[in-house]
Formats: sequence, structure tokens, C-alpha cells
Amino acid sequence: MSKTLELAKRLIAAPSVTPATGAVFDELEAMLIPLGFAVHRFRRGEGEEGSDEAPVENLFAIRMGPEGSSHFAFAGHLDVVPPGEGWASDPFEPTVRGELLHGRGAVDMKSAIAAMVTAVEDVPREAGTISFIITGDEEGPALHGTRALIDYMTAEGAIPDLCLVGEPTSFHRLGDMMKIGRRGSVNIWLTVEGTQGHVAYPHLADNPIPKLVAMLAELDALMLDTGTDWFQPSNLEITDIEVGNRAHNVIPAQAKARISIRFNDLHSGASLSERVVAIAEKHGGTALPIISGEPFLTEPGAFSALVAGAIEAETGSAPEQSTTGGTSDARFLRAVCPVIEFGLCNATMHKRDEAVAIPDLDALARIYARVAKGALALDMKQGA
Amino acid sequence: MSKTLELAKRLIAAPSVTPATGAVFDELEAMLIPLGFAVHRFRRGEGEEGSDEAPVENLFAIRMGPEGSSHFAFAGHLDVVPPGEGWASDPFEPTVRGELLHGRGAVDMKSAIAAMVTAVEDVPREAGTISFIITGDEEGPALHGTRALIDYMTAEGAIPDLCLVGEPTSFHRLGDMMKIGRRGSVNIWLTVEGTQGHVAYPHLADNPIPKLVAMLAELDALMLDTGTDWFQPSNLEITDIEVGNRAHNVIPAQAKARISIRFNDLHSGASLSERVVAIAEKHGGTALPIISGEPFLTEPGAFSALVAGAIEAETGSAPEQSTTGGTSDARFLRAVCPVIEFGLCNATMHKRDEAVAIPDLDALARIYARVAKGALALDMKQGA
Repeated sequence: MSKTLELAKRLIAAPSVTPATGAVFDELEAMLIPLGFAVHRFRRGEGEEGSDEAPVENLFAIRMGPEGSSHFAFAGHLDVVPPGEGWASDPFEPTVRGELLHGRGAVDMKSAIAAMVTAVEDVPREAGTISFIITGDEEGPALHGTRALIDYMTAEGAIPDLCLVGEPTSFHRLGDMMKIGRRGSVNIWLTVEGTQGHVAYPHLADNPIPKLVAMLAELDALMLDTGTDWFQPSNLEITDIEVGNRAHNVIPAQAKARISIRFNDLHSGASLSERVVAIAEKHGGTALPIISGEPFLTEPGAFSALVAGAIEAETGSAPEQSTTGGTSDARFLRAVCPVIEFGLCNATMHKRDEAVAIPDLDALARIYARVAKGALALDMKQGA
Repeated sequence: MSKTLELAKRLIAAPSVTPATGAVFDELEAMLIPLGFAVHRFRRGEGEEGSDEAPVENLFAIRMGPEGSSHFAFAGHLDVVPPGEGWASDPFEPTVRGELLHGRGAVDMKSAIAAMVTAVEDVPREAGTISFIITGDEEGPALHGTRALIDYMTAEGAIPDLCLVGEPTSFHRLGDMMKIGRRGSVNIWLTVEGTQGHVAYPHLADNPIPKLVAMLAELDALMLDTGTDWFQPSNLEITDIEVGNRAHNVIPAQAKARISIRFNDLHSGASLSERVVAIAEKHGGTALPIISGEPFLTEPGAFSALVAGAIEAETGSAPEQSTTGGTSDARFLRAVCPVIEFGLCNATMHKRDEAVAIPDLDALARIYARVAKGALALDMKQGA
């Protein structure tokens, strides 16, 4: 059995539905200590289970290279989304069937963390400093996860020069896609207040729906941009409308809607929120934005070329350098150093019977080893 | 105590939440028999209580005048809407406090039926034929009420020449408004189907909301007409929108809305439905219309002048001849003869502590007597 497969099984066997604490971190710590890492674990959040303030655990592990050497970090998360019903085997009992390893976290992203551990075995200590930035709160509210780790690293003076996040970025086959950025995301709640009344006497009422419809028509017609060299055009979707009026002969008192904008680095969450608020108010309504993430970009350069080259060397073809998809913790890490995301195939992530192709485990470990060694050898002055 | 007050109390004391049967009809029958009326009662509907097919009772009473004389009908309903909570006194125990008689049906419209009975005492049999067209299903689905009575009268060859419906049409004071018509009403359910997906991958989804928004914007901008000599402009209200998508990052699969159109006699329920269906389909959706009522109009003429004159003679001022408000059973009766609606003040109808000003009871009875006598004396060839 490959080393990576063995480690992945150990991590999957420690249930860790978000927010994760305890056993799964014990496993990872036990893997890193023999490799010479100093491991620091800490918990944040004192709220009740199920609340945004529920306790989460974070782990920062570092193996120092020679004085003045570069610092490369692997980042990721040990929490997983709930398994749901209907699995062919226990989601927390790693199960091999044919060429597949099944289990919650098999691709998102316990196996990738296992591959990082295996990769480090192949990197001599003299090559430079290596760290693991691992949270138990990526799938949840992400309030006390990677952000708390960055605070810790900042306080310790342990900010990496380059970072690779092991999210499952591959699509059809291992290595066909890496992420050099991600779009930002903002959800905005829209409300129009009116005055309830009887449909037979509309002059005594003030129907909020036509105002909301006009507002939504204007928002839907917005052309936010036409994309950039690295990003697709920003996109606005109306995701919900709710009036909740069951009486056929009543003009309702309130109408609500929700929109979701995924945006590139021509915008910020604040600039888009301001624009939507102005349109909402023009139509007599209000808008409440909640920004889930700002966009980030690590512009193509030496680091991306290194990652792409490592992938091509192992798989035979170069990856697409993409900025599509949802948000990840890379949005936080990009504030402190260049970040690229690369990992396993995401076809089964968050789904029933999540599974990884076993041959991909060792291939990913070899790619990660190439990236780590290459990153530590890069001249960081032109690293990004 | 006035005769009308006494009769009104007897009718209110017989609870008759729609659909009405039994006791309240026994009371009315007992009032009409001594006045020389032949009373025919029949039930329709064999469904369960609470269903649209629940049993309802109808009453047709006729006192024949001399051979070849005119036939004037009073029409109305003995069912009432549910009382709801919080009354100052039992809604089915008629209670006088000060100048007000309280009870469910006090204005809509048991007291008006009491006034009709009192009025008839004042009309000599030689003046002509008088009938009562009384249903127990006006406040409900109205499937087996006045329509069944019309079928019965048609079969019996007892169609009236003119009809007065005793709905509470007065607004601020008794006699300030009568109805010479009513608008029609149609509710239309709109649906757009799409394809669910993730907001980060809109090209893999088909969001139904923008199509619904465009459809509603077009419907809201419709100018159906600018009104007629007798009707205000037809009006379309969007009364509900429902998507029901709670997931912020999901593009929903379906979006629904409902509109309500109150329309004048430049349209029919069918013509408007056809128009909305075409707009819905243009935007990739579907429309399901349910017509609640067609408009009706009894154009001002001898009959309306007679009713207005009777009101002015008793109250000192002429009523507004209106076509506003909701629908009533007059929409069915208008198919067989000219119909005008006139009755008590509607301020408390369908509300808690429904009440009628006691002096209005005798005044209404006197107006009804003038109308009945006058109608029987009209030359029906030019009656409408």
C-alpha cells in the first residue's frame, strides 16, 4: 500500500464534520512530528455547537530550513461537509473498491493533506523552511480558521514566501486545472416596503412588487464588465424572490429578493454593494449586502510556471490556469503571499460516495514534492 | 322596537357561516309565508364540509300579482363570513348598544333582507309580482347558490323583470352610494421553469427569475384601458412572487407569481387571460387563469333613476352611481335582467363587531318599498 493511501485512510477514519477539532488533528500531528515539524495547535470560538462561534481547531506546523532560507507553505483544511444519506459504505470508514478510495474527505481534502505529508519526506531540510497551515473551519463560517492562523503566523514572524492550497481543482483528470485566483462573492438582500390593501382598491394601497420588479430588471440588465486577461466576466444572479402573500385579493405590504454576485478583481465587495444599494434606493427599496469573499489573483509568473511545470512533468500535459469556481481559504492567504491552488479531481466533492482514484494519490504527492522543492529554490524577489 | 330591527335580530340569531343551510332559512320562510309568499327551498352540493361541494341551501319565494303584471325581485344571501375572534359580544347574539345593532350579518346582509321583508308589507299584491332570490352561498365558492336559483327560476318561467340586490353599498352614510355595475375579476398564476445550478457556474444553469421579472415588468406596464363612462380603468396588480430558494449559492429551478386583474366591460375574463398567456409564453413561461367573475353593467336609465330617486326621497341626497368594489352575485343575475345593488353602510362588513345604525334599518325598508312599488309601475319595455 502506498504511503499516501495509508495516511489518507488514517485522516478519513477520524470523523471531522465542520467545524473540526481533536482526533483528526492528533493524526496529522502524529504524522508531522517524525518528519521534524514543530506543531502548534490552538482552538478558537466559545459558542454553542451549530453556531458560527462553535469551537474550531487550527494547526500550524513548521520545519525550519537553514538560516535565511525560503519558506514554502502547504495549506488546507481537515474539516469536511456532512456526509448526507445513502452511501454505499460508511463515509468515515475509508473503503477501497477497485481503484477508488471512498470516504468523506477523500478528495476535499484529506487525501491532499496526506499527499503533502508524503511530499515533504522527499524534501531535504536543507532545501528551506516548510510549513503546514491547516484549519478545521473551511467548510463552515471560516471566521476562526485560516484568518486566525494568519494572525498567529504574523505574530510569530512565520509568514511564508509562497503557498500552495490543496483544494480539489482538477476537473476531468488529475492535473487538468490549477487555480491562480478566485472570484469574489457577495450576496445582497433586497427589500421593498409598501402598504397592504385590497386589490379592488389599489389607490388605498402601495404595492411593493412593481418597484421590486423594476429594481430586479435594472440589476439583471447590468453589464458589470467583460472579463480580464485572467478572469471571466463578473456575473449577477437573482437567486430568490419572496412575497409570501397567499390571499388572492390582497396587495402585499412587503416584497423581498436576494441576488448573488461573483466578481473579478475589477471590483471589490464594497464597490458592488454600493452600486446595488444605489439602485435599490432609486426604486424605493433597501439593500443589505453580505460579502463572502473578495477576489484574489496570483498573476502568472515564476510560481505559476513552476506549479504548471510540476504538473506537466508528472501527468504529461500542462494544466489550465483558471480563476473559476467558488471561494476558498486562498482568498485569506493571498493577503500575505502569492498563492496557487492545486489538488485532486473535484467530481465527487461534497457528494455521496466521495472517492479518489488511488493512482492519483502518489501522483499528487510527487507533484507536491516537485512544487515544494522548486518553490524553495526560486528567487523570491521575483517569486510572484 | 321597529319591525325591521326585530326581523334582523331573528336572522342574526341563527348562525349561518357560509355555506348556510337550515335554521336561518326557517326564520326567513316563517316571515314570508304570512305575507302570502309561496316558498321553495332546495339544497345543492353533496361534498364534505369545507369543500367547494359542501351542501348549500337556496330559497326562492314568490307572491304573484295580477295576470300580466310586472315581476320585481329582491336578491341577497343569508350566509355570513366567519366571525373571527375578539368580539365585544357574541357575534350570533344580536346585541343593541346605543344606536347600534351588533352581530355577524348586521350589514352583510341579514338586516337588508329584514328590510326587504318589511318593505313588502307596504306593497299591495295588486301592484305586481314580487320574489325573493336568497342563497346560502354568496361568501363561499358561489357554485351552487345564485346560479342554481337562476336555473330554477328559468325552469319555472319565473324570471324577474328587474332585480335589486341588497349588498351593503353605502359608504360613509346610508344612501351615499349604489352600484349599477361591478368590475370583473381574474387571478392568473404565472410560472417559469428553469434549470437549477450553482451560482458560480451560471452557464450550466438556466435561471428562471430574469424571465419572470421581464414578464412581470411587461404585465405591470400594461395600460388595459382608460376607463369608460361608467367604469374606472381596469387594473392589474401583481399580488405574489414565490421562488422559495433558501440556498444563497443556488440558481433555482422554478419561479412563480400571481396577478389579479379587476376589469371593466371593455374586457372579458377570457380576453384578458388570452393576452396574459401570450405575454407569459413570450417570456418562456406559462399562465393559468381562474376567472372569478365577469363585469356587469346596468346602464343608467329608468331603473337606476327610480332607485336613486327612492334614496334621495328618504335621505335628502342622491347617491353616487358606482361600479367600484369587489364582485357580488349581481354578476350572475345581470344575465337574466337589469340589476342594481343598494344596501347598508359597509364600514364594518366582514369585520369584528359588525354593526348597523338602527335608524338605518327603517330608512332602508322605506327605500326598498319605494323601489319595489316604483319598479312594478315602470314600463318594462324601457325598464333598463
